[in-house]
Amino acid sequence: MTSQYESVVKADTERLIPIVESALLLPVSRGEAPILQESMRYSLEAGGKRVRPILCLLTAESLGRPASSALSCAIALEYIHTYSLIHDDLPAMDDDDLRRGKPTNHRVYGEGQAILAGDGLLTEAFGILAGDTTLSHEQRAEAIKTLAEAAGWRGMVGGQSLDLEGEALCRMGKPYDYSRLQLIHRLKTGALLRASLELGAIAAGAERDARNTLRDAGAALGLAFQIQDDILDATSSSEVMGKRVGKDEEKGKITYPKLLGLDGARNVLREVTERAICLLQPIPNPASLTAWANFLSTRVN
Amino acid sequence: MTSQYESVVKADTERLIPIVESALLLPVSRGEAPILQESMRYSLEAGGKRVRPILCLLTAESLGRPASSALSCAIALEYIHTYSLIHDDLPAMDDDDLRRGKPTNHRVYGEGQAILAGDGLLTEAFGILAGDTTLSHEQRAEAIKTLAEAAGWRGMVGGQSLDLEGEALCRMGKPYDYSRLQLIHRLKTGALLRASLELGAIAAGAERDARNTLRDAGAALGLAFQIQDDILDATSSSEVMGKRVGKDEEKGKITYPKLLGLDGARNVLREVTERAICLLQPIPNPASLTAWANFLSTRVN
Repeated sequence: MTSQYESVVKADTERLIPIVESALLLPVSRGEAPILQESMRYSLEAGGKRVRPILCLLTAESLGRPASSALSCAIALEYIHTYSLIHDDLPAMDDDDLRRGKPTNHRVYGEGQAILAGDGLLTEAFGILAGDTTLSHEQRAEAIKTLAEAAGWRGMVGGQSLDLEGEALCRMGKPYDYSRLQLIHRLKTGALLRASLELGAIAAGAERDARNTLRDAGAALGLAFQIQDDILDATSSSEVMGKRVGKDEEKGKITYPKLLGLDGARNVLREVTERAICLLQPIPNPASLTAWANFLSTRVN
Repeated sequence: MTSQYESVVKADTERLIPIVESALLLPVSRGEAPILQESMRYSLEAGGKRVRPILCLLTAESLGRPASSALSCAIALEYIHTYSLIHDDLPAMDDDDLRRGKPTNHRVYGEGQAILAGDGLLTEAFGILAGDTTLSHEQRAEAIKTLAEAAGWRGMVGGQSLDLEGEALCRMGKPYDYSRLQLIHRLKTGALLRASLELGAIAAGAERDARNTLRDAGAALGLAFQIQDDILDATSSSEVMGKRVGKDEEKGKITYPKLLGLDGARNVLREVTERAICLLQPIPNPASLTAWANFLSTRVN
């Protein structure tokens, strides 16, 4: 039996994924750097759940604006997410061969071109926002500032660096503690999910209060997402996930289940999800985002 | 004997480098990702000629505005340039151990952290522009759009990809031709130097005509810079350059001297430099940029 929120999520997904995927495509440019263009497209078109762009579009709708008003923000978020996956999969980082059931970018195009594909996507994310004439110049500047902070050294890239450093500490028999784990999760996954809601709010022209509320809800939602990721890495299979699992354990990485036990991790997940949902209630149309909060914390892949 | 333009360049450098270098510093953020911050600072503070930020500041001055009006643009350009050097030096790309006489970023911090340091600098470049309250929102959006186009897949990153692909072609005994060499140079080095002048013009509030003129002059200047780089790689020493030389030859790379001979390359260099200088003359104060055009095409490192 499908729960009510699963139906909402399914309907949102079927409605919004085609919008996201048709807008994701790089404009064709003949002649200039064909391999780079191909490798950028390869990763953009590799599918995935498109969680960040969908949350961004739903945020605009939750404030009474059409999804299309936040489309460039949604696309920029997915470009950033896609670049981060390409770089994370590199041998010098997580060293993964499989992503969404397909060979990772560097396995197809080589490491050098994969690094450049990531650089190209990261750069283009900001170009897309800066060039969106449906947003005011102020909205563009705000969205870019918010995205750069969430994706950069005080956000996602910072979290990835701490994670990499943490692995080295673990290999030296110096495992890190709960506060460090929380920081890594807040930065590495949380920051971009938080930005997904905040960019939707910026594009919808939200007042400062609504924007902060959505930002906080996004932060809670991002943490829930990552805790469930940890739980799935410990309990699921490669077939269901479309990527290698059990690699946290393999690397001796500290995770929520490892630090708190599976039940403990599930308790924190529930609390964080409830916090996200509670924060969402004052906004005009909270139904879809609420369903997504429930879905993301119970998803099976 | 020092020529007149060398005196101008020396005076500009002494005046502007301290302004650039004091603004280059990352704000200190305690606790969050200390190794990432250290590796980003390591490369930002490695010195170098700071050609791009200086050209950007001089462009603002050439239009009668103070250098400070273009400071965030200058810093963003140097962040982009610095990130590109970190990624270019990686084993999967140029595989260099030495940069500006110091070990390259990945030799000090490891490949993973070096990739992230590059990602962090690239992202922050756009954050700096988006958050500069001394520029109008429109100027910020214009500067970001221009920089993203120059640095991304239709610009610098595209050129780097073509270059990487070209090396593979050369290894297979399929050297490429003059038009491909010109395209690589236009994208790989030319695009960011062109943007250095264009961003200065945007920050100075230039009219469309002046902006286009400076953009075209920047493109010519960028090409001259790269031809001289090719010539130096073929004729200079590691001591003078502070980096490995002769590597183009080693990799069987096509360069201007290789394709046209040293004299042929020097002739093209002279023509391109003259074109840059000719384009600059109608702007209000062309003296400094003109001296720099002469300097860049005759520099010895």
